[in-house]
Formats: sequence, C-alpha cells, structure tokens
Amino acid sequence: MTLSFIDIHAKDNNKVKHLRGLCEQANYRKKQQQTVLEGVHLIEAYLKTGKSVNAFYLTRQALENMEVQQLLDQLSGLPVYVLTESLYQDIRTLGPGIDIMAVINTPASPAEINQNSDMLVLENLQDPGNVGTLLRTAAAAGIKQIICSTGTAAIWSPRVLRAGMGAQFSLSIFEHVALDSLIPTFSLPVYATSSHAQQSLYQLDLKQPCVWLMGNEGQGISENLLQHAQGIAIPQPGGQESLNVAIAGAICLFEMVRQRLT
Amino acid sequence: MTLSFIDIHAKDNNKVKHLRGLCEQANYRKKQQQTVLEGVHLIEAYLKTGKSVNAFYLTRQALENMEVQQLLDQLSGLPVYVLTESLYQDIRTLGPGIDIMAVINTPASPAEINQNSDMLVLENLQDPGNVGTLLRTAAAAGIKQIICSTGTAAIWSPRVLRAGMGAQFSLSIFEHVALDSLIPTFSLPVYATSSHAQQSLYQLDLKQPCVWLMGNEGQGISENLLQHAQGIAIPQPGGQESLNVAIAGAICLFEMVRQRLT
Repeated sequence: MTLSFIDIHAKDNNKVKHLRGLCEQANYRKKQQQTVLEGVHLIEAYLKTGKSVNAFYLTRQALENMEVQQLLDQLSGLPVYVLTESLYQDIRTLGPGIDIMAVINTPASPAEINQNSDMLVLENLQDPGNVGTLLRTAAAAGIKQIICSTGTAAIWSPRVLRAGMGAQFSLSIFEHVALDSLIPTFSLPVYATSSHAQQSLYQLDLKQPCVWLMGNEGQGISENLLQHAQGIAIPQPGGQESLNVAIAGAICLFEMVRQRLT
Repeated sequence: MTLSFIDIHAKDNNKVKHLRGLCEQANYRKKQQQTVLEGVHLIEAYLKTGKSVNAFYLTRQALENMEVQQLLDQLSGLPVYVLTESLYQDIRTLGPGIDIMAVINTPASPAEINQNSDMLVLENLQDPGNVGTLLRTAAAAGIKQIICSTGTAAIWSPRVLRAGMGAQFSLSIFEHVALDSLIPTFSLPVYATSSHAQQSLYQLDLKQPCVWLMGNEGQGISENLLQHAQGIAIPQPGGQESLNVAIAGAICLFEMVRQRLT
C-alpha cells in the first residue's frame, strides 16, 4: 500500500487540533466544510459511494485489525495519522469500537427538492440518535428526500452519522430549510402524528407519494405547521401517552411500505 | 408539606455516596436492591403506580421548579436531600433537565411467566437506549410480558429507566432468564427478524398471542434460539442491510397491533 503513515504523540499537533475541532465544534465543521466518520463500517459505506477520504486517524492497535487492514489496502496516496491510545481516546466522540476515524469533505446539498416524491420532514429534532435512526429507517423504507429545519441536529455531525449507519450517503438531504414557507407549497398530502388526532394511521391510503412530518421530542410539531398537515394517530392498545419520535416515524413509514407492496 | 429538607455540601457525605453508588454501579444497585429514577416525569409515572419513594435528591434550583413543587406537595414523611449544583452535576447519569432524582426499591420480578400471553424476548441487547425504547414500544402495543437474557442491559438501571419513560412500571419483566431452556418449551409461535428469512412480516397472521424475539445489536439472535423461531423479514424497498433493533421491533409489534384492530 502506498499510504503515508505518520506517528503523532503531541496533543498540540496541528493535525490533532484539526481532528478535535471537527469532532467537537459544529462551527469548525461548517467553516472547514469537513466532517468525521468514526468506525470501520461507516467508512466502508462511504467509500462504496465512490467518494474519497482526506485522511485517516487511528491507533496502532487499530492498524492490527483485519477489517482496518482490508480498508486501507484498497486505498493509496492518503495520509494515515497514527495517534497514541490516550490521544485517540481523548478525541473520540463515540463509545468503544475499532479506533479509526476518517476526515471527509461534507457532502453538498442537492440542488432542488422534488415536490412530487416522498419526503420525510424533521422539525427541530434535537437528539442525534433519533435523527440518525430516522434517516436509516427512511432509507430502508425507500424515502429518498429528507428536509430539516434549522433547529434539527446537524445531519453530518459524528453522532448523527453514527446513528445513521451510512444512510446519509444514499439520501438527498436539505438542511436549514424554512419549513413555515415550504410546507404550505406542497401539493402532496402531509401527515403528522399527533396524540390529539382522530384519524388512525391504519385508515390512510398511503399508495401515492406523501410527506411525513416529525416534530421535536418534547414539543411535537409546531402549531404553524400542523395547520398544513393531517394529524394522524397511531393506535396504542397499551394506552401509553407517547412513543419515541423515531419509533413513531418507523411505524408510519413501514405502514406505507406495507401498503405499497404488490 | 411535612418533608424533611437536608442540605448536603460534602462529597463524602454517606447519603451522597449511596446515591453515587446507585447511579454508577450495577453491583451496588443489586446489593442494595434499590435504583434511581431521574427526572420529574419518570418519578411521576412511578408514583402513579401507588408505590413509594425512599428519598429525593435535588438541587436548590430544582426546588423552585413548579413541577417539582407539585410533585413534593403530594408527599410526606420523606427525606429530601438538597445537593449543591456541582455535586448534583457530578453524579447525574443523564443529560440536562430538571435536577431531581428519587431513590426507590427495585421492583421485584413477578412470580411466573404466562405462557399463553404475548411476550417480547430480548437476547443480549446491550444498548440501554434500545432496551428502554423497546419496553416503551411494547407497553404501547399492549404487550405485558418482557423476558430478558442475562446479557441484556439491566432493566432497572437509570439509563434504561429513562429510555423506558415509565414503561417498566406497567410491565411484567423477567430478567436473567436462561432462554436456551425456556424458548423450546413455548407452544406459542416464536418470531425472530432475520435478514436471511424468506417469510415477510406482512404475510404473517398475528391475531393470536405470539412471542417476539429480538437479538443483540451486532450479532443478532443466536443460532441456538433461531432454531426454535420462525425467521421473518421486514421488506425494505430501499435495500438497507439492517434496521436498528428497536425500530425492527416497533415495526413488528405495530403490524401485530394493526392486525388485531377490529
């Protein structure tokens, strides 16, 4: 392999400071237009899209891992920074795993929303795990377009990337969208789960394209947007007061999948 | 109100050490047969079951919160330990919120599994968020019995309690169950999602009681148990390789809910 391996021991090394900035600071990620993929599987999913990595950061121990070796064997001409164990542990954003990160250029947003195709719209979803899980679930359900309000967790942050398990790479994602002006322009039906709604999810005809609107974990969907949506209820025989938003989303999206199976 | 308010400033105070042990050490929780509920809503859900709290721990700031005041107004004869802000922040196990914890006796397991009633069986699920979310989803879907292998995240740990949002209090939960000997005794159909399965979830008749088997996040369900289950696939038009286990569980349980609606 023709990769350059560079050992780094110092906390104040510029490459380490760059990595730390990308891991920890949303503003720095934005300014650099770069982000970090953590873990072998996420990096593999990214490489499968044909895009390239800027640099790898890992530990000496990770270099001995067979999956890491196979990953690096495919590549050439890239710097591989080998960090001390303590330096790596201090920077990592996720739990234990194989210690490898890849720095990539943040993928650009696609040009235009296709208003005739299914969409998942996220309003102020704050938990990175929920957002990533919803992306992963939408990708599995065959929804290609994701629209996010400004208050929604950053799609390309390390935590949302991890929860998305590579879903980001196959989706058309629009961030920082002013939903208040966009949603009223939709001609597709817009559905929003709501505990007050009378209409059951299972009464809907979901064979045609539609828009799914999911709201903030605590507040739900704002009144403004609810005006432009059909409130729907997920029947709960156990009588719980609410479902986790990623769970509610999955139940809706897969009822759509079920209805569209021939 | 007749609660006793006791200010605590010292890190080595015995009550603080007790709380820290319960928050941080599974073994200590087991030995003491106590656990910790964090946050107003979880504590409220617990009190609604009619059971009692041993003690509260909170900050002076939380005492000024109206929801906390309403909570404490219902109670009498309990110690309320008022911790300094830094002491509380150092012990808390969860993200920011209203700073109140309640110490409770860990609820006992029910006597016996009802083999004729729906069950959710968790084999070595390790992520506390996934386990708590599955409990919450099962409770909403009307499943009352949860069976957990020894390797599954502890149901009464603070993190699983938080993700469960009170679901634990309405369920019959059996922990540390030897699934290898139990599952083969079931006469109800046992379903397990599997990426290799041919049979679609949507082809099943789920009107009668059944058992749902969910496996470890990385490994899935063990071969041993799969032998005693019907493998089922969740159709994924988007072609993703896998769904988060809590999401897969929710899709299955709510297909069951849908089929059982009259």
